[in-house]
Amino acid sequence: MEKLDLVSEIQTLLQEDADHSKILELVGPLQPYDVSEILRELDHGEQLKLMGILSTEVGAEALEYLEPEIQYRILHHLHPDLAIPLLKEMSSDAVVDLLLAIHPNQAAALKKWLPESYRERINTLMTFPENSAGGLATVDYIAVRAGWTVRRTLEHIRKVAREAEVVTYAYVVDAQGRLLGVVSLRDLILADPETPLAEIVNREVISVNAYTDQEEAARILSQYDFVALPVVDKDDRLIGIIAVDDLFDVLKDEATEDIHKLGGSEPLPESYFKTPVRLLYRSRIGWLLILFVAQAFTGSVLKHFEEILSHVVALTFFIPLLTGTGGNTGSQIVATIVRGLAVGEIEFRDIARVLGRELLTGTLLGVTLAAATWLRAYLLDVEVALAPVVALTSFLIVIWSSTVAAVLPLILHRLRIDPAVVSGPFISSLVDTTGLFLYFSIARLFFGLG
Amino acid sequence: MEKLDLVSEIQTLLQEDADHSKILELVGPLQPYDVSEILRELDHGEQLKLMGILSTEVGAEALEYLEPEIQYRILHHLHPDLAIPLLKEMSSDAVVDLLLAIHPNQAAALKKWLPESYRERINTLMTFPENSAGGLATVDYIAVRAGWTVRRTLEHIRKVAREAEVVTYAYVVDAQGRLLGVVSLRDLILADPETPLAEIVNREVISVNAYTDQEEAARILSQYDFVALPVVDKDDRLIGIIAVDDLFDVLKDEATEDIHKLGGSEPLPESYFKTPVRLLYRSRIGWLLILFVAQAFTGSVLKHFEEILSHVVALTFFIPLLTGTGGNTGSQIVATIVRGLAVGEIEFRDIARVLGRELLTGTLLGVTLAAATWLRAYLLDVEVALAPVVALTSFLIVIWSSTVAAVLPLILHRLRIDPAVVSGPFISSLVDTTGLFLYFSIARLFFGLG
Repeated sequence: MEKLDLVSEIQTLLQEDADHSKILELVGPLQPYDVSEILRELDHGEQLKLMGILSTEVGAEALEYLEPEIQYRILHHLHPDLAIPLLKEMSSDAVVDLLLAIHPNQAAALKKWLPESYRERINTLMTFPENSAGGLATVDYIAVRAGWTVRRTLEHIRKVAREAEVVTYAYVVDAQGRLLGVVSLRDLILADPETPLAEIVNREVISVNAYTDQEEAARILSQYDFVALPVVDKDDRLIGIIAVDDLFDVLKDEATEDIHKLGGSEPLPESYFKTPVRLLYRSRIGWLLILFVAQAFTGSVLKHFEEILSHVVALTFFIPLLTGTGGNTGSQIVATIVRGLAVGEIEFRDIARVLGRELLTGTLLGVTLAAATWLRAYLLDVEVALAPVVALTSFLIVIWSSTVAAVLPLILHRLRIDPAVVSGPFISSLVDTTGLFLYFSIARLFFGLG
Repeated sequence: MEKLDLVSEIQTLLQEDADHSKILELVGPLQPYDVSEILRELDHGEQLKLMGILSTEVGAEALEYLEPEIQYRILHHLHPDLAIPLLKEMSSDAVVDLLLAIHPNQAAALKKWLPESYRERINTLMTFPENSAGGLATVDYIAVRAGWTVRRTLEHIRKVAREAEVVTYAYVVDAQGRLLGVVSLRDLILADPETPLAEIVNREVISVNAYTDQEEAARILSQYDFVALPVVDKDDRLIGIIAVDDLFDVLKDEATEDIHKLGGSEPLPESYFKTPVRLLYRSRIGWLLILFVAQAFTGSVLKHFEEILSHVVALTFFIPLLTGTGGNTGSQIVATIVRGLAVGEIEFRDIARVLGRELLTGTLLGVTLAAATWLRAYLLDVEVALAPVVALTSFLIVIWSSTVAAVLPLILHRLRIDPAVVSGPFISSLVDTTGLFLYFSIARLFFGLG
């Protein structure tokens, strides 16, 4: 059945207050994600009715896919007998995101629903910055003790599995909560039940500090092909785990952010269609005006060379071609360097090596493009003396653009400024003014009008 | 210990043919990924020695992180008594990648090492395109039968868990191998051992067809937060699963590819430092020349308007500013649209809605930038009549660029051409010529020189 048909059928049944079993027949086979998509289409009253019918498990997971405002509206208006179990069932990283997104008074009211110990752990998670590993962690992990046998461990896992976000690993902690090791469910199942856990535990556990940047955590998780990554505080105490699907989203969002920045705009606050035109405007106009100001200097350069421009009008014919070529070369390089920095292939200490490679590549590109420019001058049938001027400028602009585009992102990265602000348009604007200055200086030299 | 120290210490021990236990003491605590990084630093002879010391399990997993050529060189030169178990232990998607990357004769020789049934399944996987779900799948999944009890299922999992890539789920298939459902290890552990599997199996399993594009598979997996995704053929027979970590890499590579294309170059065949300058050149020069040709038309346009240019030299002052503004606006929009298409937020059928939003945003941006251009004309102290000309052109170029940048990626996507070829530089080049034509047409009208 198509999603829209399904939604309207469920709406009809909800409005008729039909038998719950009829509605469950339609909703039962769906994945929590699909249920969340249906919730999105319903009005508030219908959402509440449907939540009353769903199992706590499915309801809580479906809720997690929705935006905090919708989550809060539903939890706030449901009867507490329904809402409290839902909140408890939600994974703790989702609860943290919800509590941080709503008004502190609202958050305080919701927190009262949670048991004391859970509330404390949530409070800890809420202290970490949003983009840190701690901000992404969930406390719904399985903690076990080194002294246990495999049998006791499996019994414990059975008891807590329902709450846990990831059951693939159990984390061994000491009495102070310090992370000692990790054991996989696979190894537990393969081991004899009477084996002491200490015998099969892997003590060389890879973990990240709570303040580690989330991109770095994603890099580590994807490098080691783990399904979850433990997060510890400065005393090595386990405070949570990050599940792979949460880092999947991090990776996606970071790439989206970089693509927007490299394209010369601020990332959108929401998905495309959810972003109102007013915010689209706001995400773009800032950079457009900065780029405008940077590029406005070209006007001054051109005015400065007004005399030669009026003598040799044909010089004008090559302005867009030369600035365009410089911009294009730069745009290619920043894309490569910024991405290389993002995935960890390139670091600041590689700066000399990067510059060397880019200057060599730039020389090859410059020679090719200089030849193309010479050809273009010939085809445009301008005076013969112009061809070497434009060809030489073309070459030098490519070299200049390569230098700026190779070095600038690395320096910004070093200064802990996001290198993706060096967008293609940014390099173009930067190189245009200097490129034109170069062009007319060379022209003046050749035409002896200096 | 620092990685380099560790490598040199291991090298020394290997060269001295030191006791294996001494080497294992160093290598034992490491993750397979770290072992692979050490293998990379060793020379070929040392690699073979180290592989002879590692357990088959760790050795095989470390091998998987290396490039196919290195994998083959190691497997080919190791004694078959060591190499055959390694090849068998490797996950089947890695084996497929290896077999596809080496010479068919070499592949045939390696395949002879594999048991008949495994070879057949590998052969099936090898028929799928590289970027499809089938090309990414591994046959190392756990298949169970609906008639079993939970006890029997867990016994079976214990038997095959060592070989399986993901033990989080077991897939229920019928006698023909058709996928009937999925059961999670969590549910198996929670259930009473005598429960029939049929009672706890989830029959609404989300799967993808083997020919589904890998990006689409990644999207589904991340949407539903699964750890693995089953892949079926056209008759719904289970042919493999894709593990989340493989899709992690897909997502990363696709984003890298889009970033390069949006920056106006071909994606690099390898990581940045592994790509020789010659290939850097090749990945860039193609697009640079295409863009050069597109932009070369600006020369013809300018020549066409030579008369007005020589009369009103100040018109030249605004050329880079106007073309730059058009290019920047377009660059912002293509980044947003291409990314929206990649993550599934935007589809072709949204074309009218996208265009409407972009024209509205473009109007707001256009008005702002027209005002800025007017101001710039005033500050440059050019003749008063020029200000309205450049301001109007600025507005129209923004609108025109918005239209092209909004519509073109959607049309290409519809035509199954990667929309990311519409890069920022591409839009700039495209808009430059038309923008300049517009500019001088308006100027001629205002100055009555037509």
